[in-house]
Amino acid sequence: ISMTCRLPNLTVRAAAGLLNPLSIPNKLLTGPGPSNQHPEVSAALSAPLLGHLHPEFTKIMDDVKDGIRYFFQTNNDWSFAISGTGHCAMEAACMNLLEPGETVLVCRNGIWGDRFAELSRRLSLKPVLLSQPPGSVFTPEQLESALQQHRPSVVFVVHGESSTGTLQPLEHLGGVCRKHGALLLVDSVAAAGGAPLLTDDWLIDCVYTGSQKCLGCTPGLGLISFSEAARRKILSRKVPPPSFYLDASQLANYWGCRTTEPPDQPVSARRYHHTAPISLVYAAREALRLVAVEGLPAAWERHERAADKLRAGLQGRLGQRLFVSKPQDRAPTVTTIAVPEGVDWKAVVQHAMAKHSVEIAGGLGPTAGQVWRIGLMGLNATEAVAERVLAALEDSLKAVGVATPNL
Amino acid sequence: ISMTCRLPNLTVRAAAGLLNPLSIPNKLLTGPGPSNQHPEVSAALSAPLLGHLHPEFTKIMDDVKDGIRYFFQTNNDWSFAISGTGHCAMEAACMNLLEPGETVLVCRNGIWGDRFAELSRRLSLKPVLLSQPPGSVFTPEQLESALQQHRPSVVFVVHGESSTGTLQPLEHLGGVCRKHGALLLVDSVAAAGGAPLLTDDWLIDCVYTGSQKCLGCTPGLGLISFSEAARRKILSRKVPPPSFYLDASQLANYWGCRTTEPPDQPVSARRYHHTAPISLVYAAREALRLVAVEGLPAAWERHERAADKLRAGLQGRLGQRLFVSKPQDRAPTVTTIAVPEGVDWKAVVQHAMAKHSVEIAGGLGPTAGQVWRIGLMGLNATEAVAERVLAALEDSLKAVGVATPNL
Repeated sequence: ISMTCRLPNLTVRAAAGLLNPLSIPNKLLTGPGPSNQHPEVSAALSAPLLGHLHPEFTKIMDDVKDGIRYFFQTNNDWSFAISGTGHCAMEAACMNLLEPGETVLVCRNGIWGDRFAELSRRLSLKPVLLSQPPGSVFTPEQLESALQQHRPSVVFVVHGESSTGTLQPLEHLGGVCRKHGALLLVDSVAAAGGAPLLTDDWLIDCVYTGSQKCLGCTPGLGLISFSEAARRKILSRKVPPPSFYLDASQLANYWGCRTTEPPDQPVSARRYHHTAPISLVYAAREALRLVAVEGLPAAWERHERAADKLRAGLQGRLGQRLFVSKPQDRAPTVTTIAVPEGVDWKAVVQHAMAKHSVEIAGGLGPTAGQVWRIGLMGLNATEAVAERVLAALEDSLKAVGVATPNL
Repeated sequence: ISMTCRLPNLTVRAAAGLLNPLSIPNKLLTGPGPSNQHPEVSAALSAPLLGHLHPEFTKIMDDVKDGIRYFFQTNNDWSFAISGTGHCAMEAACMNLLEPGETVLVCRNGIWGDRFAELSRRLSLKPVLLSQPPGSVFTPEQLESALQQHRPSVVFVVHGESSTGTLQPLEHLGGVCRKHGALLLVDSVAAAGGAPLLTDDWLIDCVYTGSQKCLGCTPGLGLISFSEAARRKILSRKVPPPSFYLDASQLANYWGCRTTEPPDQPVSARRYHHTAPISLVYAAREALRLVAVEGLPAAWERHERAADKLRAGLQGRLGQRLFVSKPQDRAPTVTTIAVPEGVDWKAVVQHAMAKHSVEIAGGLGPTAGQVWRIGLMGLNATEAVAERVLAALEDSLKAVGVATPNL
C-alpha cells in the first residue's frame, strides 16, 4: 500500500496505565446518586447498536416518550430525553423557556437554586431569588407574594433538594403560578420516581429529571416534559435558544412530537438533529419499563418505607440528628444527617467506603461540611439496603470515636 | 404504612408497547455513523457503576485523558471528554473559544460548516463564510487570503466532511492561522482515528470528535483538546460561556487539568461539576485502549486499505461514480457515491437494509438525494466488511434495475 510510505511519525506515545483492561469494583451507591442499576438495565447498555433514525430505534424512542409520560404522570406531547445529564436538562429547560431579559423567580433553599440563578445570569436572564434557609421549603403564600412583587415569566423550584434533603410540596404551587401568568418549572432530579409527582394534576409546565437516581439507570440522560403553555411559549420565541443541541423545538421534531400549529396538523417527519446516545436510550427505556411494571404507587411506597427505616435507625439506634427538622419536609430519596460537633465527617465517609464498600456522601453547597447524605433511590430503596447503610454508618461512627446508643 | 392512605391516584397509565422487553436486531452499521462497537467496549458499558468522584473513576478519567492525547497526537493538558455527542462538542468548542461579537471564519464545503455558522449566530458571534463546492477542499492560499481580509479570532474547518466524503489536508493550515493571529479549530468527528491527525505537529488549537465513528464506541461522548493558546484565550474571557455544563474551565477542573496560571502551580482539587456519564466514560476508555493497543498507524492503514477496496469495487465491478472527483480529496472513512440519473436512492438503501441488514445512507444537507454514503470506520474498517457492503449494494442496485458491469 502506497500509504505506508507517507504515514506520519507519532510524537505522542500511549500512557502505560491506559493499556491495562478495565477493572471496576462493586460498591453500594447510597450517596445522592448515581444509584446502582438494575441488571436488566445494565444488559440493555450492551445491546447491539442501531442507527439514530432506524425504525427499530425510533420505536424505542416512542417507548421512552411513553415511559416519561408515565414517570411524570403527564399527557404532554413534548416529553422526551435530553442527550446529556440532569444538569444538562436544567440548562435546556432554562434556555428554552426563557429569553434574554426575562425575569425568572428562583426559589432557592439549597445548591440547585443557586445553580439555576447562575445559569440564568449566563443566559442574560433576570433571576430574582426567593430564599428559604437550607433544610426548609416554600409555602404557596410565600410564592404568591413574590409573584405579585416580581411578575416573573417563569418560577423555578426544586422538588427534591439533594444538597439539603428536603421535599418541596408542589400540589398548590402550579395554581398560584397560573393565577399570576407564570410558568412553573420543577427540578425533580432527586425526587421523580421516588416521591409522588403528578405533573398534569399539579399544573407543572416543565419538569425534568436525571436517569441515575430513582430511575435506576446509568447517568447521561435527562428526561424532560413541557406543558402546552410551555410549548406555545417556546414556539413563539423571538430568538432561538443559544444552543442547537438543546433546542427543544428541534429535539421535539427528532422525537416525533408535534412542532406546528394547529394541533390537528400531522406531525412532521423526523429530521436528523444529532446522533442520539443509542445505548443510553436503550437503558432508559428498560428502566422506564421496570418502573411501569412495578407501578409508580408501589415504587413511591417502597422509597418511603426504606426512608422510614433509615430515619428510625439514624435517630434511634445511631442517636443522630436529621438535618431537616420538620418530618413532613424530609425527602424519601435523600436523607441528610447533621454531623455532630467535632466529628471528622470525611473520616466516616472514608471508613464506610473502605471497610463496607458503602457510599455515604458529605454535604454540598450550603451543607458542605455540615451533613452526611444518604440516598436510597431506585434499586437501593429497600429496607435491606437501609439496614446495610445503617450498619456501615454505625461501625464508621464507632471507628472515629462517636458514641452511639446501645439499645 | 401511613403513606398508603395519602398516595395520589394515577391519571396516566403506562402504554402497552413499553411493557415488552427490549429486543434489538443485529445490523452492519456502515453508514456515516454510529459504527458497530467492539465486544470489549460493549462489555465495559455493563460494568458496575461508580460515583463520579470516586478515585477508581477519576483514575479511569485520567486514562481517558491519556487516550485522547494519544488519539489526537497531542500533549495538551486540556484534553478531556464532553458529556454529550460530537455535536455537543462542536457547541462546546464554539462557545468556549469565542465571545459575543468576535469574528469566526467558517470554511464551508458541506453541512458542518453551515451548522457551525448557525451555532455562531445563535451565540451572537460574527461568522464569515469561506465556501468551496461540496466535494472539494480548501488550500492554504485560499485560507490565507480570507484571513487577511476578515481577521477572524478563530478559523473553523472540517477534517472529514461526512456529508460530502472529503478529507481536508490540515498540515499547512495551522501555520497560516498562527501567522495571522487566529486559532485553528478542527472538526474531526468523521476522521480522527481513521485518517492521520497530528494535532501538535499541525498547530491545531482545538480539535474534537465523537465517540461513535472511528473510535468504535457507542455515541454520547465528545472528545476534545485545547492548545495552550486556546486555554489562555478561554481563561481570559470577559464573560463566561452561556453554558455551565459545557464551560471548558469548569470541565478542565473536574477532569483534573490545570486551570490557573502560572503553569508550575499545583493543579486544583477536582470539584463536583456534573454527574459524568459513567458507563460512557468506561466505554470510551476501553475504545481508546484498543486504539492504543493496535497503534494509530496500523488503524490509519486499515481504514485506508478498506476504503481502497471499497472504492475499487464501486468504480470497477459496480460501475459507479464517486462523488469526490479528486482521489487525493477522498476521506478513507466516509465514501460518497453519486446516485445515477433516474435511480431511486431510497429504494436502494431500503433493499440493502431489508435483505442484507447492511446500512447504506443517503445524502445529507447539500448532498441530500444526490449521493449514497458508506462509512467504514472503527471495527468496520476492514476489507471483509468492504466486500460485504459491495455485495449488498450490487444486489440492491440490481433490485432497482441498475445495470452493473459484469467483469
